[in-house]
Amino acid sequence: MVKTFQVSTTRSLCFTDITAKVQRILQESECKEGIAVVYTPHTTAGITINENADPHVADDLIWKFRELVPPDEAEYLHAEGNSHSHVLSSLIGASETFIIHNGLLMLGTWQGIYLCEFDGPRTRHVHVKIIKDPS
Amino acid sequence: MVKTFQVSTTRSLCFTDITAKVQRILQESECKEGIAVVYTPHTTAGITINENADPHVADDLIWKFRELVPPDEAEYLHAEGNSHSHVLSSLIGASETFIIHNGLLMLGTWQGIYLCEFDGPRTRHVHVKIIKDPS
Amino acid sequence: MVKTFQVSTTRSLCFTDITAKVQRILQESECKEGIAVVYTPHTTAGITINENADPHVADDLIWKFRELVPPDEAEYLHAEGNSHSHVLSSLIGASETFIIHNGLLMLGTWQGIYLCEFDGPRTRHVHVKIIKDPS
Repeated sequence: MVKTFQVSTTRSLCFTDITAKVQRILQESECKEGIAVVYTPHTTAGITINENADPHVADDLIWKFRELVPPDEAEYLHAEGNSHSHVLSSLIGASETFIIHNGLLMLGTWQGIYLCEFDGPRTRHVHVKIIKDPS
Repeated sequence: MVKTFQVSTTRSLCFTDITAKVQRILQESECKEGIAVVYTPHTTAGITINENADPHVADDLIWKFRELVPPDEAEYLHAEGNSHSHVLSSLIGASETFIIHNGLLMLGTWQGIYLCEFDGPRTRHVHVKIIKDPS
Repeated sequence: MVKTFQVSTTRSLCFTDITAKVQRILQESECKEGIAVVYTPHTTAGITINENADPHVADDLIWKFRELVPPDEAEYLHAEGNSHSHVLSSLIGASETFIIHNGLLMLGTWQGIYLCEFDGPRTRHVHVKIIKDPS
């Protein structure tokens, strides 16, 4: 079973908490033990896991990502002006894999799942694939 | 089957080789073909794969990570003083996925599995989920 | 089922598009629904997903990776002179996981799969493990 949902992002760089959407797909699957792959099919976005309590953490990640990989560096050859977005996509990665146990994602207390927008605002897709443990 | 073990880290940034612990869990599972997901449920730690021969490689990674993402940058808003740890956690990632073949992790000659501590010293948890190949 | 293929890289830092090779292994597996783990067993290489249309994107990634993590920084202790390659390997990661749906990799329109060489030229190996969805 694979399910897809959309996320409308609001700024050039921003994080959207998608934990509840992934958890709802898991509940509908009725999978009790297994793994979940959360995958975004874009080359200027990514999926990450980070703190879900203080929103300043996401703000700080965005500040630091922009500082490490600023837009508009003169050496970039790609004509669309979003090479920094492609760099961040490869640094963060297009997917994360989660363990399912007792019908729940085995997240830590402070872990949330985020779609990372690196070239917004846009409408983005997220695929969730559940694999039940056959053993 | 999912198993959890603990790692006590000793410094603010350090790498702990957990390869043998993951291999022991694989042996106990009696899985011959499949995949293993190694996942840490923390937002200021990560899992990576790197050289297990010369310990200077881990030292060099730690030096470079601290140089790219130093602590205490004035722009950080999060009040706990560990925003750099959260940034490194998203850059390295909370998990790695391994292929199991003939009852062994399909690691390269020089590959070891490391828990990366970015805000230690602390006691950390690592989950290992084995999925047997049903085919 | 796990399959392995080789890639001969041509420069110290370069990206090789391996999408077609992974797709051929998937076709041979006759898997319709499941996941694929693409894994490289080296500590100075990696696997990433990024744009497959304009080759300038890969050029820009390579420029930026070298700018963030230059070779030959004086602080490195590892005697082989490739500590920057090990750093990039951990930042990019040794594997990516893909969703299989209707017998195809569920890639985005612009997504290609790349072997990232960080210490070439060399002959590299890539393992592909297909897990069929048992449900």
